[in-house]
Amino acid sequence: MILLNMPLLQLAIDVVNAERALDIATLIAGYFDVLEAGTPLIKSAGIGIVKRLKEKFPRKLLFADLKIMDAGSLEASMAFDAGADIISVCGQASHETVKEAISEARRHGKKVIVDLIGARDMIGLAEELRPLMPDYFCIHTGLDEQRKGRRPSEFLEEYARRISHPYAIAGGIKPEDIKELIRFRPDIIVVGGYVTKAESPHEAARRLVEALRGG
Amino acid sequence: MILLNMPLLQLAIDVVNAERALDIATLIAGYFDVLEAGTPLIKSAGIGIVKRLKEKFPRKLLFADLKIMDAGSLEASMAFDAGADIISVCGQASHETVKEAISEARRHGKKVIVDLIGARDMIGLAEELRPLMPDYFCIHTGLDEQRKGRRPSEFLEEYARRISHPYAIAGGIKPEDIKELIRFRPDIIVVGGYVTKAESPHEAARRLVEALRGG
Repeated sequence: MILLNMPLLQLAIDVVNAERALDIATLIAGYFDVLEAGTPLIKSAGIGIVKRLKEKFPRKLLFADLKIMDAGSLEASMAFDAGADIISVCGQASHETVKEAISEARRHGKKVIVDLIGARDMIGLAEELRPLMPDYFCIHTGLDEQRKGRRPSEFLEEYARRISHPYAIAGGIKPEDIKELIRFRPDIIVVGGYVTKAESPHEAARRLVEALRGG
Repeated sequence: MILLNMPLLQLAIDVVNAERALDIATLIAGYFDVLEAGTPLIKSAGIGIVKRLKEKFPRKLLFADLKIMDAGSLEASMAFDAGADIISVCGQASHETVKEAISEARRHGKKVIVDLIGARDMIGLAEELRPLMPDYFCIHTGLDEQRKGRRPSEFLEEYARRISHPYAIAGGIKPEDIKELIRFRPDIIVVGGYVTKAESPHEAARRLVEALRGG
C-alpha cells in the first residue's frame, strides 16, 4: 500500500565519473522520485552532467547538489539552466548568498534546499534561516562525519520540536533507519552509498522502497 | 624594486566558460604568481579546467577553489590529480572534512587554504582551526557580501592580533586597497573582478603590480 504523504526518495549519485553516474541512474532510477547529481560529481564532470541526467530522465526531479557558498545567483541559474529542479545552498553561506539562491529559484519556478551540513548548531542555523523561507532544509551528516559515527537522526527530535519547516534528511541512511525516520515526517529521504556501493543496487533499492512502504 | 617577502598575487578566474577562462589567463597570466580556477568555473566546466590551465601554464601555481564542504579526501585528490598546487576547504566544513583535505594535501606534497568565507565569526573560526595547521587561511568577503558593502580588510587588524598564521585575502580588492593591506603582511592577495571585468585587463593588472611594488 502506498501511503499518502510518503516522503520522496532521492538517489544521491555519489560517484565522480559521468558515464558511471549515468549507468547507475539507468539501472535503478525507477525506484526513486529524485535523482541527485552529487557535489563531487558536478565538480568532476561539470554542470553538463545535470543536463545529461535531465535529458535521460525527464520525468524524474533532478537535484543539483551545488552546496553554494558564494555567487548564489550565478551558480543557481547555471544549474536551473542545465535542467535542475532543485539546488542546494549551504546554510553557512552568507545570508546574501542564501537569499540570492532562493530568489533565483523563485525566478525559475524551481526549488532550493538549504543544506545544514557542517553547522556546529544545525537546529540553531535552521531557526536563523527559516525567515528566508527556503523550500526545504537538509539535515545532513556528511560522509566525513559519518565515519566518526555521527548520524542525521540524532537531530530529528529537536528539529521536529523547534523548526516547523519541510526538510530532507541525508547521511548514511539504510533501510533499517527508515522506520524511525518516518516518525518525524521528513519530506525527502536521501540515500547514496547504501545503494550505489551495494553488490546489487537493484536489491538495495528494492529494500529501501519496501522499508518506506512499511513492508 | 621588488620587495622581499612580497605577497603572492593571485588571479581569480571568475568566469564560467572554459575557453573564456583560458583566454583571460593567456592574456594576463604574466602579471600573477597564482592562477585560480574559481568555484563557479569548476562547477560549470568540471575539474578538467584545472588540468587545462596547468598544462598551459605549468610554471604558475594553480589554485583550485573547490570550497570543499564534505568528502575532503575525494575532492582534494581529484584536484591534485588534475594538477592543482593548492586547494580550498571551507572552514565551516566539519573538522573531519578539513582534516581530510589537509591530509590529502600532505600526501600529495601540495597545499590547502582554509577559506573562512561566510563564517559569522571569521577570526574565532580561524582560532578554532589553527591547531589543524592548514597552510593558509583565507580572509574572504564573498561576492554576495561585497554588494552589501562588506570588505575583507575590516578583519585584518584583529586577525593580525589574534591569529599568527599565513593567510590569503580575497574579496573585491583593487589597487587602492593594496597599500593598507600590505601593512598586515598577507601571504597571498587575490584579485578577480577588478582585472577580469576591466575594459583593459592588462592595464588593470599592471596597476595592481605597481601598487604592490609601492610604485
